[in-house]
Amino acid sequence: MATVVFIKNAAQVMSRRCFMYNLKGLSRVGECHSSVSFCGSRLPLTWSSRTTGVRYMSHGTASRSAAGGRNSRRGVLALTGAAAVTTAAAVAGFLANVHHFQRAEMATLVPQVAEEEKHQEEGDILARCRGFMSPPVTDVAVLQRRKGEMCTRMEMLIMQTQADFCKALEKVDGGTFKVDRWERKEGGGGISCVMQDGKVFEKAGVNVSVVFGNLTEEAAKQMRSRGKVLKGKDGKLPFCAMGVSSVIHPKNPHIPTVHFNYRYFEIEEEDSSKQWWFGGGTDLTPVYVSKEDALHFHSTLKEACDKHHPQYYPDFKKWCDRYFFVRHRGETRGIGGIFFDDLDGPSQEEAFGFVKSCARTVVPCYLPIVYKHLNDPFTAEEKDWQQVRRGRYVEFNLVYDRGVKFGLATPGSRIESILMSLPLTARWEYMHEPALGTREAEMLEVLRNPKEWV
Amino acid sequence: MATVVFIKNAAQVMSRRCFMYNLKGLSRVGECHSSVSFCGSRLPLTWSSRTTGVRYMSHGTASRSAAGGRNSRRGVLALTGAAAVTTAAAVAGFLANVHHFQRAEMATLVPQVAEEEKHQEEGDILARCRGFMSPPVTDVAVLQRRKGEMCTRMEMLIMQTQADFCKALEKVDGGTFKVDRWERKEGGGGISCVMQDGKVFEKAGVNVSVVFGNLTEEAAKQMRSRGKVLKGKDGKLPFCAMGVSSVIHPKNPHIPTVHFNYRYFEIEEEDSSKQWWFGGGTDLTPVYVSKEDALHFHSTLKEACDKHHPQYYPDFKKWCDRYFFVRHRGETRGIGGIFFDDLDGPSQEEAFGFVKSCARTVVPCYLPIVYKHLNDPFTAEEKDWQQVRRGRYVEFNLVYDRGVKFGLATPGSRIESILMSLPLTARWEYMHEPALGTREAEMLEVLRNPKEWV
Repeated sequence: MATVVFIKNAAQVMSRRCFMYNLKGLSRVGECHSSVSFCGSRLPLTWSSRTTGVRYMSHGTASRSAAGGRNSRRGVLALTGAAAVTTAAAVAGFLANVHHFQRAEMATLVPQVAEEEKHQEEGDILARCRGFMSPPVTDVAVLQRRKGEMCTRMEMLIMQTQADFCKALEKVDGGTFKVDRWERKEGGGGISCVMQDGKVFEKAGVNVSVVFGNLTEEAAKQMRSRGKVLKGKDGKLPFCAMGVSSVIHPKNPHIPTVHFNYRYFEIEEEDSSKQWWFGGGTDLTPVYVSKEDALHFHSTLKEACDKHHPQYYPDFKKWCDRYFFVRHRGETRGIGGIFFDDLDGPSQEEAFGFVKSCARTVVPCYLPIVYKHLNDPFTAEEKDWQQVRRGRYVEFNLVYDRGVKFGLATPGSRIESILMSLPLTARWEYMHEPALGTREAEMLEVLRNPKEWV
Repeated sequence: MATVVFIKNAAQVMSRRCFMYNLKGLSRVGECHSSVSFCGSRLPLTWSSRTTGVRYMSHGTASRSAAGGRNSRRGVLALTGAAAVTTAAAVAGFLANVHHFQRAEMATLVPQVAEEEKHQEEGDILARCRGFMSPPVTDVAVLQRRKGEMCTRMEMLIMQTQADFCKALEKVDGGTFKVDRWERKEGGGGISCVMQDGKVFEKAGVNVSVVFGNLTEEAAKQMRSRGKVLKGKDGKLPFCAMGVSSVIHPKNPHIPTVHFNYRYFEIEEEDSSKQWWFGGGTDLTPVYVSKEDALHFHSTLKEACDKHHPQYYPDFKKWCDRYFFVRHRGETRGIGGIFFDDLDGPSQEEAFGFVKSCARTVVPCYLPIVYKHLNDPFTAEEKDWQQVRRGRYVEFNLVYDRGVKFGLATPGSRIESILMSLPLTARWEYMHEPALGTREAEMLEVLRNPKEWV
């Protein structure tokens, strides 16, 4: 691997062409297929990248044509976006080897994190970039110049979320994420971080995408068919979509799988005005029911939602249960969380603030649960049940997930980033039905009849 | 489980309502949730069944609406159908422990089998039923009364194929198939035979379905949109669809996975005339390339095809490569075989004869390969590669297979019969790419560039 120094003269580092910035002539250094050691980063990072396509749409993003369903919404080409939790690793460390949390203890983590980070967005772009898993997709000079724009703020958020979550996971696992940087021929690129066969995690993937270009006629047609008024300039509709998405599959069957995804979409019209919206969500897929874990997870999300609107949690909780439904099994994928899309109000600032709050909950939602069950003993039968549940996870992701379906159907998509959500191992047993009264049957009962946890 | 005696007064055994037979008032014995011991069967069979739905369409059968693709063909609601190979077990036994076959030795199996079985169809219905894995879906009395009709001949064929294949597999494995008999509320039912975690086979499923009723408006509309002229009686279009389908996943990575599916579809029009067609195919998915195995497999299929039309093998071989293509990976699922649909000529008798020939090749295509590799040693790395390939198999089946997609989207489908094609275990490794020059890379090369084996 070659080494590229990440220097203050950021225009030399990584550039992108984005319609929103109308930048031309920025030099490209650190093209794909080279690697980087990232000066100023806490850890010397190395990364490899590939010139391939991009995942246009991440989990929970809709395309009516791709999904073919009636519930498809506005999310064609939308991606992910999220806020930052820098003290994740510290929180995680603090919690190590503590096996039995009280709900009160778990809950205190959220305000602590929020408090410590509330001024984070105001920091210097370059200084913040040093903490990322890789240089951001967009050239740092461009980000600095366009510091106040939503695209920049969102890209910083999703990069920060990726870094915070990855570092929290590395801390608990002891392993290291493989960082792949990739470009999309048509515009933009992404950073995929994957840790596989670690001590704690069987497979952990955290993906950032920032893509842009002109909407295809097909995509524009789909959007119009859903009621959008889109007036292009010379028939062109420039868009930018970005997001962070992640799926973590632990080894121990008593540690649940978690998934989150936060995304932002922007489309420029004839008069240069922009349509925009946010989407996202975080949801938990345990192998065994733990009411305490479920209460902690949902309460943490509810607290983040309640700061912005009292209806967000109840509405987005229901939406999550509806979305992550494996119809042919008659069961939800997990115990839910929140899911939302097309969030374009009450103002861009407030919507962004909400997304930031949600993304900030990722670490405090999940890491306490990981630490709590870190040393839980388990039997071969419990591992088998986990593997059967993993099979169901695969079924949902390949059969129903609109983002996966859209990505697989889109030529030039980066397949490995789309399918990194699949577990390392899964199992399909014919006619598997747990015996009545078992903990496995208890789990199925909850999946067949989603509960209110808070 | 209750026990139902299978007796000569077959009208008492299992009845079905089928538009083709216009039978009324036949008593029903051995309804779902009871079990049967099958008098006269070589083995005392016990079976359980469930009153659930049915898989309307098996592998390789198309529904434009379900698949959403442009290549969907006529197969809405079509199922499977096949012929018989009674000496399978004997052939298998003969070949046991012989590790290195010559092509010539393998080839001789086919004429032997054909010769021994050519008069089979003429045997007594009841006597033939005694060799099945379960009583047929249709009441034996009805089958006897309608002996000459294609629906009866096809149901006997698919039952026989299921029995012959299951017995050949039981012989090599030493294990026993679990036999589930199920009914479809709307008409018809099926028999699913599954052996799981055997000595040789990780998961082996052989499914028979015989379903009937009236075409839904949606299905009729789809058929019409594909150029079919369908004139119903009082707006109703009675149909009958049946077939046999199977997927076998062995444990040893040097034994390939096999899949086959033979089906028949009939639809009755206003003037009581019937439209009908056959579909099907057999294909092989090895984990490592063996030219000898590929030659044996394809030659056996080619010989069966050539007896009927010189273009059948070349055309259906290409169709198979096209159909079993995992588009997002740019690779075929396996090394192919044959695949065809909408076969409605040159006459019903000749088309049926061809399907019979194909179904008769199932055992001689596959069993010699199983025995050849039965004791092949393998490493943990080879097992891992098998698991990665199994992951790709799951991807094809859940993302592309039109039968699976249609089945999952159809309310009342018997999900366990649809998904029994999934392996017991599978694996997804991020960015898995075999090193150049390895046997794994050789396999990928063949999947990326389908070969002519014969």
